[in-house]
Order: sequence, then structure tokens, then C-alpha cells
Amino acid sequence: MNSRLEKQLALIMELDQLKSVLRRTRVLSADKRRENSAEHSWHVALMALLLEEHANEPVDISKVVKMLLLHDIVEIDAGDTFVYDTLALQEQEEKELAAAERLFGMLPEEQGTELKAIWLEFERAGTAEARFAKALDRIIPMLMNYHNNGQSWLEHGVAKQQVVNINQRIEQGSAVLWEKALQVINEAVEKGWLKP
Amino acid sequence: MNSRLEKQLALIMELDQLKSVLRRTRVLSADKRRENSAEHSWHVALMALLLEEHANEPVDISKVVKMLLLHDIVEIDAGDTFVYDTLALQEQEEKELAAAERLFGMLPEEQGTELKAIWLEFERAGTAEARFAKALDRIIPMLMNYHNNGQSWLEHGVAKQQVVNINQRIEQGSAVLWEKALQVINEAVEKGWLKP
Repeated sequence: MNSRLEKQLALIMELDQLKSVLRRTRVLSADKRRENSAEHSWHVALMALLLEEHANEPVDISKVVKMLLLHDIVEIDAGDTFVYDTLALQEQEEKELAAAERLFGMLPEEQGTELKAIWLEFERAGTAEARFAKALDRIIPMLMNYHNNGQSWLEHGVAKQQVVNINQRIEQGSAVLWEKALQVINEAVEKGWLKP
Repeated sequence: MNSRLEKQLALIMELDQLKSVLRRTRVLSADKRRENSAEHSWHVALMALLLEEHANEPVDISKVVKMLLLHDIVEIDAGDTFVYDTLALQEQEEKELAAAERLFGMLPEEQGTELKAIWLEFERAGTAEARFAKALDRIIPMLMNYHNNGQSWLEHGVAKQQVVNINQRIEQGSAVLWEKALQVINEAVEKGWLKP
């Protein structure tokens, strides 16, 4: 028995649970079900590959992709928190750190340490890669909400200023994407999907 | 308006449809629903990052991840084909090529050409990266079936020899993973999940 492989495979099977963590955003296709964090992670990782040229600074795109593949796995233990629920977001931090300890702790030690560091780098948003990854993670639900006629904003009675406050950090990762986000926000107000 | 960005975003929104393409494999959590190709793509791309050391040859892992993020997007037009349905697999090839033309054709030209080449490299399995990516894509449903008490094999009356024939190419990407696959297959026969 290959004990490194067995540890890695145990985590891989555990990660399957991310497919059952539901987000507020809904898929665009006819059934409009809520998307889960696993398929969201695929979507945003592929988005990084497609939009690399719009990062403010040159980025190591393979690291950005790695961050985005890993960024939500802590939700297996901690659940997803709605980005406009600021109280819950504070409690969430501790839960996510404990989840990171448990999940990355399933791996061979040096591998777990390395991947946990990448996850933390994303969380702290202190590098060009993390800022770009965060920008993508913030803009993709806005784009999906827009294409779903404002669904999640309407369901939760969100106002323009909340969206601007929470998402303006997109600009730190990509000025181009922030410009696009503002266009989406303004059109959503015009259409009555966001409170002015 | 940034026309490159608009083309890229149009594809990104189109890709959302992969979340509605269902596979034969079921998730491991309680509801046992069929998984979709988007969440599968996330799972197998992350698996590549975790199992890089088990590739037969040194691989450019960021290319492997790119391949796996892209490998199923043609199913948006062509649908998923069960790996044990060999007749359908032949017809599938043409449909997938047309889908690749359409989807990658939505991008700025040089970007679409580059990504389509990576998708084709995966399909043709002629490089170390593609062989390792294929090995991962083949072993992950086996592992999930095994953890689901043989569900998909039992549902479709699959026999050991079919599983060996279809999956032995795992060995070309990773001898270590093929050894693991054989162990899983033999245990599945013992448990009555695969016909001997």
C-alpha cells in the first residue's frame, strides 16, 4: 500500500462533499437550481484562464487557478456564507480556519502545508495572484445574477450601495473587470433588480 | 466596450450550461444525485494537483489542470457518453469536434486556437500531460463507484473485463494509479459489484 497515495485519495473522496454545498446564485439553465460550490469553483478557475490578460499586474496564472480550485473547500465543514451577510462573515473565519486544518491535515505533511499556504494567501489577498483570484470570485456571481434577471439581488432585497461596497475590491485585482462590474450594477439598477 | 472581454465573458456565461450535463456517476453524499460534468471537472482538476507525483513522467501540471478544466466543455453541445457504450463513443467524436469549433470560436481568434489545441492534445493522448490527465479522468469515476457500493456498475450490469479493457490505459499515464485501479476492480468483483 502506498500510504501517500492513500492519504491523498482519502481527501479527494472527502472533497466530493463540496458538490453538496449550495450557494445563493442560481444556474442559468432552465431549472434555475442553486449552484453548488464545486461547480462554481470549476467555473471561476476556468474564468481565470480565459481572463488572465485583464489582471492589473502580471500574475502566475497557474497559482491563481490553484487558489480558485481550493478556495471554497473549507465550506465542506463551514458552509457557504452569503457575501452580504457581514455578521455571519466574521464568525465564518474561525470555522474556515478549523476546516482548513482538518482538510489539509489529511494530506502528507509537507503537501498539506504547501496547499494550506496557498489557501491562506487567497484569503489574505496580499499578492497579485490572490487579488486577481478574489476579483474573479466576486464578479462571477454578479454576472450570473445579471443574466438571471437579478435573481439573487431581488430574492435578498440587495441595494446598489451594498453591491458597490462589497465588490469594489474587484478593482484591486482588475480595473477592467471593475469597470465591467459598474456597468452591470448600473444596468441592474435601471432594470429594477437592485434598489437604487 | 472592450470587445475581447465581451467575447470572453460570452463564453464564460455559455459554459454555465456544463452544470446541467449529467454523468452516470453519483455524488457520495446522502442524496446520491447524478453528478454533472462541471463539478466533475473541478474534482478531477484538483485531483491532478494532489496526485502530480504519481505521473509516470514529469508533467507540466498547470497544463494538465488546464486540460481537465476544458476537457468536457464540448458536452454542452454533444452531451455525455457512457464510457462503456462503444457505439455511441464513435458518433460522439464528430459531435465533439463541432462543439469545440463553436465554443472556442467564441473567443478572440488566437486565444480560441490555443485553447482548442490544448483540448485536442487531451483528446489525442499523445503527450505525457494528456496521458496523465486521461488517467485521472478514468480513475475518478471508478473510485466514486467503489465508494458508492458499485452503484453505476450495478445499474448498468458492467463486467470486470469491460472495466479492465476500458481503463487499462490508465497505466500509460500512471502505473501507480493503475495498480490502485486493479485493487479497486478486484475488490468490487469480490463484493459482487462487478460481474466476474
